[in-house]
Amino acid sequence: MPGSRMHAIDSTLSLQPHHDGSPAYVTGPSVLSLGDVLRLRLLVPEGAATPVSVWLRSLRDGEPHLEPAGEVCGGATQVFFEATLSMVNPVQRYRWYLQYRDTEGAHHYRWLNAAGLHRRDVPDAFDFRVHAGRGTPDWIEESVMYQVFPDRFANSGAEKPKAGWMVGCDWDTEVQGSGADTSRQFYGGDLPGIQDKLDHLVSLGATVLYLTPVFPASSNHRYDASSFDEVDPLLGGDAALVSLVKAAHALGLRVVGDLTTNHTGAGHHWFVDAHRNPGASTGEYYYFNEDNSDYEAWLGVPSLPKLNWNSAALRERFILAEDSVAVRWLKEPFNLDGWRIDVGNMTGRRGSDDLNHEIARMLRERIEEVKPGAMLLAESTSDAAHDVPGDGWQGVVSYSNFTRPLWQWLAKDTTPEHGWFFGLPQPGPARIDAADFVATHREMSAGFSWEVRLANANALDTHDTARAASHMIVGGQEIAACAQFTFPGIPLVFAGDEFGLHGFNGEDSRTPMPWGQPEKWGKNLRPLYAELAALRTNHRSLVDGSLRWIIAEGNLLVYLREHATGSVLCVLARGVVPETNLGHAVRLAGKPGDVLASVGQVPVLAVNGAGELRVSASGPGASLHRSTASGAWH
Amino acid sequence: MPGSRMHAIDSTLSLQPHHDGSPAYVTGPSVLSLGDVLRLRLLVPEGAATPVSVWLRSLRDGEPHLEPAGEVCGGATQVFFEATLSMVNPVQRYRWYLQYRDTEGAHHYRWLNAAGLHRRDVPDAFDFRVHAGRGTPDWIEESVMYQVFPDRFANSGAEKPKAGWMVGCDWDTEVQGSGADTSRQFYGGDLPGIQDKLDHLVSLGATVLYLTPVFPASSNHRYDASSFDEVDPLLGGDAALVSLVKAAHALGLRVVGDLTTNHTGAGHHWFVDAHRNPGASTGEYYYFNEDNSDYEAWLGVPSLPKLNWNSAALRERFILAEDSVAVRWLKEPFNLDGWRIDVGNMTGRRGSDDLNHEIARMLRERIEEVKPGAMLLAESTSDAAHDVPGDGWQGVVSYSNFTRPLWQWLAKDTTPEHGWFFGLPQPGPARIDAADFVATHREMSAGFSWEVRLANANALDTHDTARAASHMIVGGQEIAACAQFTFPGIPLVFAGDEFGLHGFNGEDSRTPMPWGQPEKWGKNLRPLYAELAALRTNHRSLVDGSLRWIIAEGNLLVYLREHATGSVLCVLARGVVPETNLGHAVRLAGKPGDVLASVGQVPVLAVNGAGELRVSASGPGASLHRSTASGAWH
Repeated sequence: MPGSRMHAIDSTLSLQPHHDGSPAYVTGPSVLSLGDVLRLRLLVPEGAATPVSVWLRSLRDGEPHLEPAGEVCGGATQVFFEATLSMVNPVQRYRWYLQYRDTEGAHHYRWLNAAGLHRRDVPDAFDFRVHAGRGTPDWIEESVMYQVFPDRFANSGAEKPKAGWMVGCDWDTEVQGSGADTSRQFYGGDLPGIQDKLDHLVSLGATVLYLTPVFPASSNHRYDASSFDEVDPLLGGDAALVSLVKAAHALGLRVVGDLTTNHTGAGHHWFVDAHRNPGASTGEYYYFNEDNSDYEAWLGVPSLPKLNWNSAALRERFILAEDSVAVRWLKEPFNLDGWRIDVGNMTGRRGSDDLNHEIARMLRERIEEVKPGAMLLAESTSDAAHDVPGDGWQGVVSYSNFTRPLWQWLAKDTTPEHGWFFGLPQPGPARIDAADFVATHREMSAGFSWEVRLANANALDTHDTARAASHMIVGGQEIAACAQFTFPGIPLVFAGDEFGLHGFNGEDSRTPMPWGQPEKWGKNLRPLYAELAALRTNHRSLVDGSLRWIIAEGNLLVYLREHATGSVLCVLARGVVPETNLGHAVRLAGKPGDVLASVGQVPVLAVNGAGELRVSASGPGASLHRSTASGAWH
Repeated sequence: MPGSRMHAIDSTLSLQPHHDGSPAYVTGPSVLSLGDVLRLRLLVPEGAATPVSVWLRSLRDGEPHLEPAGEVCGGATQVFFEATLSMVNPVQRYRWYLQYRDTEGAHHYRWLNAAGLHRRDVPDAFDFRVHAGRGTPDWIEESVMYQVFPDRFANSGAEKPKAGWMVGCDWDTEVQGSGADTSRQFYGGDLPGIQDKLDHLVSLGATVLYLTPVFPASSNHRYDASSFDEVDPLLGGDAALVSLVKAAHALGLRVVGDLTTNHTGAGHHWFVDAHRNPGASTGEYYYFNEDNSDYEAWLGVPSLPKLNWNSAALRERFILAEDSVAVRWLKEPFNLDGWRIDVGNMTGRRGSDDLNHEIARMLRERIEEVKPGAMLLAESTSDAAHDVPGDGWQGVVSYSNFTRPLWQWLAKDTTPEHGWFFGLPQPGPARIDAADFVATHREMSAGFSWEVRLANANALDTHDTARAASHMIVGGQEIAACAQFTFPGIPLVFAGDEFGLHGFNGEDSRTPMPWGQPEKWGKNLRPLYAELAALRTNHRSLVDGSLRWIIAEGNLLVYLREHATGSVLCVLARGVVPETNLGHAVRLAGKPGDVLASVGQVPVLAVNGAGELRVSASGPGASLHRSTASGAWH
């Protein structure tokens, strides 16, 4: 083997040895216990250098352990190695060691971890991992989530009482993305309004309705709950929720709520009872000073006092009690199917307190008791890798591993003005190329087990971000949607994305839905979303198929979702792509032109005389193709 | 600013913005408490692209926070930015965000974290960090440690009783690096023998004598203690230790012991009392099965039963009691100055138990009570980044961040035989170039606060590894020693290194010291070690000066240790280096030829007409030069 072949595997994604946590590469019980033994496989693709030996390195009680891997299913074209992994610890980390020898007899080695292939030693941070304990139910991994911000989705027309904080708005009033009235503009969307529109969700292929908070509050976003004991009467009250969930369930839709475990509103009765009242029983729910006059709050915002999870009474009332906040809404008559937890990354963290994992575990355990298999996802604005060991949150609603790097790859050129974009002092997402998109995605996902990855939500935007249509290139949202529905994880569609709505920040994105007002639509993307959702339902590979990178360079991103039942080749082009050779790594099931779905300027695929697949593109576009699986089941 | 300048900072180490935790870049209390505010500085070197804005990103209770940095001490040549960091959490993570704008107005950004400069988003894993709580005493950071394996260092000639496990050996008997007798060969080195040789340590500039275990055991390495209550009579017993420590202290040497918190020997009276005796009070000290017939052991080796730190009784006896194992040897009359903890990475870890940090904290707290400022370092064979948050172990005796990558850079070509080298199935350390050495060092060190880095031990080899002289190129050990004494951290010299001894693995490296037998010396390196130790004593920059990379390419590694009291430029060449321009990043204090120390084929430094420093080398060698500080104090 000449040294140049080592260089080739370092520089060519499709030639790199491959492993991930998908069923094609991991065989064992679906829910793992300590002592279980898994069989793990590694693929050495056709045309790549073949290692002389392969070992699986795991950590056992903190100490590295090397297990030899044997060649299995070897063939002329590709080779598989297999090794066993023992579940010694609840989170079992591992990576692959590959030894190569060149024609002069010199030895080389590579590590393969979840961030990629490395020619030198690497820290354990990016090891692959599996976890023992609770499994994520299939329905969650198979979900297509649709996010609704109740005040802006649909107004049933029911009469609503006025409250002091409100600035009443007509449905056509312009949303104020920033300013004093931003959180006070009241459009009057309600739960009966949502119920009336459930057929819209079904037509898009959504399987889960995710509602941002529905508890009474003093803002249109309702993240400042004044009670967890009732549904906001402005939304229709408890009866409206009962009715909505029942109607949704009848249509096969699940419904997930939004819970603030980090804080309540300053108007919450727990807080009101205790503020400036040192003797109050709910005082320990918060971080008050001695006389309860001052208190800790979310980012110092006084209207959002922070909950203190050291309090056993709070734990009881919020999680553990028969009728606790976290469980009563999952039970009859409400029957919510789970929670998205707001500010999951801050919950239980304050100064020297770090109760985050403990509270996540407690929530998960309690919810499983009451409603086995209910959803429990945590918002996490940043790198969430260390917060999802598998026994607490099933996954995260995050931006770091998918949303942000995708924004960056598909970003339009931004004007060089000063400004902030989603937490950074820049006017928009700074552009990166496809290679950096993949590198960022891999590193930011490495801390998640495969199971967690499948339960992470992949959003193009949410009520907390600018809209994809506003910061991506023309046609970028469609390409991004193709990624969203073909990456591991739950596609999370924010209501309005299907109309190509715009918004320069999260608040500005909370546009009242322009029902029957096509003049307000950026673009009608309902057929695309419906097509992509159907594709996901019909192709198991798009749920838990292996994710294998073929090429990521500049404008071009090509990857395979591989599964025993059939694979899907995903070709995404941000712009013009000169003819590029994908080699033998990919085998299409039909003619290269056979396309499952496409958007924009459809990339052109062709097979040359040597049987190599070539791709080119004349502009932004994407296509999804049926492919023969080349994974571990052959 | 043309785009090429962005490319330049990505590709040229010396042009990259710089920050580390050294005093030049961090101003604040030496021991930190929550609520403290630090001032942090970032250097933009001469000739590098200047950012239009700089921000400090930290995590506060799990949420990213951005703090603007202002330009300070700006000048024609280099620019500094400064921002404040609040100690919100016990371990405060941070990194720098730099925004650039090119001449076309397009914006670019870079992240600077402890692993380096990044043009895309990166996980939090490699953030810089500082920690609140206990500080490491200066004497530890300033140490030069000298490791002695008592059976092989020096024999006083005292009569020793025979024990069943022993295979008696003359001092000249060849050490068996592997085989049935490896741990049974008994050479009879003892503590009085060591005491007789303390002048040797002093002459080398050592300040700390580190003794591998001295408790009674059934092996020559004594990691299988049969008691923690007495010093092995074969070594001279308690009186010999009292005498040795007293003599060492009189010479200004501190003495550190070696404690197995992960296991005892199967011959330990705690274990013997409990084995097959279910009622025994010490049964809970171990992981026994129901009838105490079977038990957990280190890597399954039956002679090393694993301690169970769930046991309150064990905690009491080992740590908390007035006369506990961990503290009695630190007190009169023994007066040890601290401990190296064996198998620190496994201690308290077993299956679903992970008590490692808890036990480390408990040990630290208790030791501080009894002997403030005593040393507490933990052995950690692998990536130790997550095990040293600052409140437990002060630092680690590890291989991952310094020793292994240095071995790899200086490795000789190994014959292509099958074999194992320190835990990997390869015949020797696989060679890497200087760039990969630096990248590995940075990533593997990123998890340590600066304070922890200064307390980490940097070894070229230990009793658990092959000798540097055996696996490095000819002259490599000398170059490595130059790195060892000029990197942040404690130089840890294994007895025999100063004689250039050989050894193909850890056991083979436990050579009886060839006192007065120069024919057995690989090379007399005593003058070099003494010179390097003196340099470290005389140049504060080598203790806590900033570590700034100048160039790392192929055979060449150049870095600066910068300090207000004067800086040192370190030039290491693995082999031939063609003339290479170091640019303006480095300013020498005297003529380029002014050298503080050098080894091998001394690299040639010259300043060209443009004032740029150039370096070349004709073969392996290193030189250390006095340099003008270019750090943040200017």
